[in-house]
Amino acid sequence: MNAVTPAEVGAEVREMALAAQAAARRLVASTTDARNQALLGAANRLDERRHELREANALDMQRARESSLDSALLDRLELSEARIDAMLDGLRQVAALPDPVGAIRDMRTRPSGIRVGKMRVPLGVIGIIYESRPNVTADAASLCIKSGNAAILRGGSEALNSNAVIAAAMAEGLAAAGLDAAAVQLVQTRDRAAVGALLALEGLIDVVIPRGGKSLVERISREARVPVIKHLDGICHVYIDASADLEMALAIAVNAKTQRYGTCNTMETLLLHEQEAPGLLPLLARAFRDADVELRGCERTLGILPDAVLATEADWGTEYLAPILSLRIVENIDEAMAHIDRYGSGHTEAIVTAHYQRSQRFLREVDSASVIVNASTRFADGFEYGLGAEIGISTDKLHARGPVGLEGLTSEKYVVLGDGQIRT
Amino acid sequence: MNAVTPAEVGAEVREMALAAQAAARRLVASTTDARNQALLGAANRLDERRHELREANALDMQRARESSLDSALLDRLELSEARIDAMLDGLRQVAALPDPVGAIRDMRTRPSGIRVGKMRVPLGVIGIIYESRPNVTADAASLCIKSGNAAILRGGSEALNSNAVIAAAMAEGLAAAGLDAAAVQLVQTRDRAAVGALLALEGLIDVVIPRGGKSLVERISREARVPVIKHLDGICHVYIDASADLEMALAIAVNAKTQRYGTCNTMETLLLHEQEAPGLLPLLARAFRDADVELRGCERTLGILPDAVLATEADWGTEYLAPILSLRIVENIDEAMAHIDRYGSGHTEAIVTAHYQRSQRFLREVDSASVIVNASTRFADGFEYGLGAEIGISTDKLHARGPVGLEGLTSEKYVVLGDGQIRT
Repeated sequence: MNAVTPAEVGAEVREMALAAQAAARRLVASTTDARNQALLGAANRLDERRHELREANALDMQRARESSLDSALLDRLELSEARIDAMLDGLRQVAALPDPVGAIRDMRTRPSGIRVGKMRVPLGVIGIIYESRPNVTADAASLCIKSGNAAILRGGSEALNSNAVIAAAMAEGLAAAGLDAAAVQLVQTRDRAAVGALLALEGLIDVVIPRGGKSLVERISREARVPVIKHLDGICHVYIDASADLEMALAIAVNAKTQRYGTCNTMETLLLHEQEAPGLLPLLARAFRDADVELRGCERTLGILPDAVLATEADWGTEYLAPILSLRIVENIDEAMAHIDRYGSGHTEAIVTAHYQRSQRFLREVDSASVIVNASTRFADGFEYGLGAEIGISTDKLHARGPVGLEGLTSEKYVVLGDGQIRT
Repeated sequence: MNAVTPAEVGAEVREMALAAQAAARRLVASTTDARNQALLGAANRLDERRHELREANALDMQRARESSLDSALLDRLELSEARIDAMLDGLRQVAALPDPVGAIRDMRTRPSGIRVGKMRVPLGVIGIIYESRPNVTADAASLCIKSGNAAILRGGSEALNSNAVIAAAMAEGLAAAGLDAAAVQLVQTRDRAAVGALLALEGLIDVVIPRGGKSLVERISREARVPVIKHLDGICHVYIDASADLEMALAIAVNAKTQRYGTCNTMETLLLHEQEAPGLLPLLARAFRDADVELRGCERTLGILPDAVLATEADWGTEYLAPILSLRIVENIDEAMAHIDRYGSGHTEAIVTAHYQRSQRFLREVDSASVIVNASTRFADGFEYGLGAEIGISTDKLHARGPVGLEGLTSEKYVVLGDGQIRT
């Protein structure tokens, strides 16, 4: 915690990025086995350092309490024995995933005789900027290593002691496997200028992934001169279509809203076909009131549920992250999709329907990262999708969309195999 | 050519983008057949308007001569009968390509019972900013329509009359096929504020693709608040490995440099293994001197070819686009790849080798959009790769790399099929 100038912080971050780039160049030539051994070794080292990690975390927790951090943040900061076990499991699970690097697809012979295909390769150097949860350090670093990328980690300053132990174990795992320990580096300064410096490193940092609240993500997207993989909002919709199975509709709607309130794939607005509204709304209202969910409805909704609050224009565009639900009655699937188009955040939308053509229209026409038929929006998640783990979620349209796993940390280059062909 | 304020230009471009977004929403629901009919219809309409197009082009040419445009630009501006024929052929060829939209891959059943896969979908609204060649209007618009995207075209003001006739034919083709004519719109103002306005339309324009000289591309990348698919330089390398087939090496080196000088996939630097240099350099020197190519070599090169010019540090990082070639003798493949890593632009690199392991190392470790074994760098091209056509080339690492065809104009979203699953 020496006093340093922004220029010194910038120079330090730049040195880290140069070391990361050199490490990435070597990592791309590493074997799958060496990268897996690095992850398994990191898990073992972390297990050996468990006592040290608990002490570091206790120090972080003490300081956080002294700074009057709120209880939700304190909860996320804490590393219980169970959470450490989960982190070790996570490292071992990532080691067990298939290696995405080097896969070649669509290799075809062209009339000239050359063979052309696409090879999956690491992106290079990935910056991860995140908030209080220290387990992100292990999750993010492991996904980067597995996919052949170097990681520069900038965690929350409240978790610095915990993160330092985890990052050291990752570096030891790399070194023990004969890989460059600089493939995982933690930005250790608490100086906020470090984030700005990272975001300015065009040509050194290949992509930055922010994980945290909307204000963090907005600031990073605005400032970054390097590419960013991100999502801002999760204003997710469920549309209950005409003639949907009402039992299924009720179960999905309740699950999508109440299974967890604070997650980005939680439903915020329920759209209901007018044909089903009179029968279904009272059942929905009872279920949501049992769960203490406040209902805010359109005028037609209030005609059936006079106790609901009248939704304002602002409600349709709000990610509540809380036990509040907006309800709108629509005439048909077109009105439902138009509502999603206007107010949605491109994250996750679901339709409950028994109608084949409408299910296909919804799948094709709804422009969101995840589009779901007859299941809860809560499934929009890297583990549920089978990615093994996720490093974040993207609502951007280019590159990766939705939960981002190993594949999203890679890109594809063209590879050409010839026998001496020249162009004529 | 009324005097208008930048705010008026901005409002006009924004109106176009809103119309394009609405058109894109409808296009995503269109059939493959309707989009193909639009392209075939556009070709027919353009054929009917051939006389009008020739007159519009003659007017553009006359103004360009009056403005003293250089002869290379005049040549690119001119639409001969043969070039119009090629444009019509291009439209019909794009119509004949497979539809990328709607393809679903990797659909897998998860333990929860949901099935998860990825569906290829259009990006939405694509802005194309290009210089004098009017045939880009038809090429770019056809690739956008085929892939279900709306296009906003901003061509060079010197080609405005020609572009207007082509864009009108495209719009007529769309309308005749029952699609929204606003899916292809040409920015008709000559005001340069229009480009800045396009680049600022976050949330309305999904990606901008600049096609033109480096200064245009640099300006657009710097200014854009929307994503950009681009390449700046094409500093392409050929590395001739130890024990390469010398006849093949000679043929590839000469072709990569001399087949065309002004293209981005032309070789600018030849790297030569020291073992092959004494035998091969005199042969290369003779061939390049026959073609009037100036040679600039490292010191070791000059030891064998005393007549060559000594290359400066700047030479290694220069895209000559001219009959000039840099030559460097290297100790081994590692030195060759380190040179490429330091000076290359990530566009296209080739190795000439007879050695299996080194071919595989080069393929995997060289971080360029196209990596080639035993063929000329000149193959790095959408047509040669079988994309049917290309809308540009990307040296970015995220999203599309290398020649960008229909697939690069799409992204993949997650689709989930359930039977009422909820998360527990």
